Amino acid sequence: MGKEKITIVGSGNWGSAIARIAGNNVKQNPDMFDEQVKMWVFEEEFEGKKLTEIINEEHENRKYLPGVALGENVVAIPDIGEAVKGATVLIFVMPHQFLVKTLDQMEGKVTKGIRAVSLAKGVEVNGSDIKLFADIISERLEISCAALSGANIANEVARDRFSETTIGVRKKEDGDMWKKLFTTPKFRVSIVDDVAGVSLCGALKNIVAVGSGLADGLEWGNNSKAAIMRIGLMEMKSFCQEFFEGVKEETFLEQSAGVADVITSCLGGRNMKVATAFVKEKRSFEELEKEMLNGQKLQGIHTAKEINTFLKARNRVDAYPLFTNVYRICWEGKPAEELTDGL
Amino acid sequence: MGKEKITIVGSGNWGSAIARIAGNNVKQNPDMFDEQVKMWVFEEEFEGKKLTEIINEEHENRKYLPGVALGENVVAIPDIGEAVKGATVLIFVMPHQFLVKTLDQMEGKVTKGIRAVSLAKGVEVNGSDIKLFADIISERLEISCAALSGANIANEVARDRFSETTIGVRKKEDGDMWKKLFTTPKFRVSIVDDVAGVSLCGALKNIVAVGSGLADGLEWGNNSKAAIMRIGLMEMKSFCQEFFEGVKEETFLEQSAGVADVITSCLGGRNMKVATAFVKEKRSFEELEKEMLNGQKLQGIHTAKEINTFLKARNRVDAYPLFTNVYRICWEGKPAEELTDGL
Repeated sequence: MGKEKITIVGSGNWGSAIARIAGNNVKQNPDMFDEQVKMWVFEEEFEGKKLTEIINEEHENRKYLPGVALGENVVAIPDIGEAVKGATVLIFVMPHQFLVKTLDQMEGKVTKGIRAVSLAKGVEVNGSDIKLFADIISERLEISCAALSGANIANEVARDRFSETTIGVRKKEDGDMWKKLFTTPKFRVSIVDDVAGVSLCGALKNIVAVGSGLADGLEWGNNSKAAIMRIGLMEMKSFCQEFFEGVKEETFLEQSAGVADVITSCLGGRNMKVATAFVKEKRSFEELEKEMLNGQKLQGIHTAKEINTFLKARNRVDAYPLFTNVYRICWEGKPAEELTDGL
Repeated sequence: MGKEKITIVGSGNWGSAIARIAGNNVKQNPDMFDEQVKMWVFEEEFEGKKLTEIINEEHENRKYLPGVALGENVVAIPDIGEAVKGATVLIFVMPHQFLVKTLDQMEGKVTKGIRAVSLAKGVEVNGSDIKLFADIISERLEISCAALSGANIANEVARDRFSETTIGVRKKEDGDMWKKLFTTPKFRVSIVDDVAGVSLCGALKNIVAVGSGLADGLEWGNNSKAAIMRIGLMEMKSFCQEFFEGVKEETFLEQSAGVADVITSCLGGRNMKVATAFVKEKRSFEELEKEMLNGQKLQGIHTAKEINTFLKARNRVDAYPLFTNVYRICWEGKPAEELTDGL
């Protein structure tokens, strides 16, 4: 059997943090992995130089993860076809709005049947239809895509602060390869047989984080915040079990992807902070996105809207009162004070 | 059947917050409850006046819960025998170090076979033996004692900020009475058939809160904090299931007494704050207790010690690495940086 050849599709903050770990780990396991880790980089200029050149010469992504050394074996490649050619393992890690366009560019260039993992968060909703990114990747490229999610703030992982993650796999026997690729003494990987649960946690937790931020804005205190996190976790679990097959309870209640990521996202993070500002400053999310996120979208409120569209199409809005209250407060002018009504 | 006669045994911050709720609720359910709620108050002077007089005249516990109106039907009584005489429902809510002494004073004065609930947190360890307060109360007084615990910061509950609690009962049919006594639109009560789980959550979560405070002191960030909370919750569950009968998974993972109380305690609260100061200021807990807690004991570190004594006696220290690391850091000079070793 040949060695696994790794390509990282994406090179932002989280992509670079993961590239550092994968770059170190392939060297620890030379029997299993090829020594080079390729990273597809969307080419751009930074301080008058091409970003790929900066990464390949300075071994640092100075734009998205400054101050953290990537291995010399992490090679930035601006052409996606070249980056994925011959790869046996793909790591998707990009803002979810770029995923579909990137898949378009990859079609026909990826070896069928290889393994992948999606670190991109979110779901694709079309009326009464909902799709996981891991499934979209699997189907479009005819490969087997797992999902990785957890309480993983990129800058903390990149600095070797203790944290944990969860990988949802389609076949338990893939777990060993993923563990070898990602585990470090300060980054613990656990494997669950639940791609849907892990994928959905990464998306749905952002709705809960918005709810927690609204409660913070109202200055309700830590009891309320903890109650919203608990109820949010329960709605996440119910949602996944109602609409997907094979979802495991433990993913939500015991794994980093579930309970721990809800906690991290509700303690800090942009969803929580912007929602707090929405209540305190009485300004629109549109304005706050422009000002606080430099025009980027706030994932939690858009996920809340997509999930609401889906629940309406399925006639199940009332079964998810927290998700629904968050949606109505963010998009329909419901007073934030009514956040806990009907919970 | 006669009406239930309520006595609250204790009158601190949490006792007074609960007295307010019970006082209101008995009036809402006149068929079920006697209109008067008695509250045993350890008599002391406050601003030159007896505390019982303040409560009975001003309907406010100005010493322990200032600014919150108690119902006129909440009657403070300094003599414990008189307070519990004829009661059919006892609510124990006092710092745990006073529990045994109070039970001594109550012996022979309580009607056998009545119902009680313990809001006191903690366990009694004697070498390889461990006992719940709810069981101690049940046995000493020959009554049936439930346990109430949850993400319940007294000052927030007293001000009707949304929160939830869990009551662990011995008989499911008792649930209805407890719900009527404690539920309000902003205080949601759920019932589980698990006295041990609910009782132990209230004690063990304080160890986790100390762990979380140590991580804060080290400035490890929110990933680490969330990981410690997740691992803490798992050790709480394992501990209870290993050493007690009939403990339910859901108590830890789905109830306010479990996951939500861990969150609240790790977000704020004295255990977390004093542990942070221990790391940052490099001073002893003894000194910090004197300065930050006015000489009161820090529950989490003492519970960590008791649980360690018990685990040693049972030869099970290694199965609980987080509990053990917290104990060793607090009591044996282990460096705080080693908090996550062996997790």
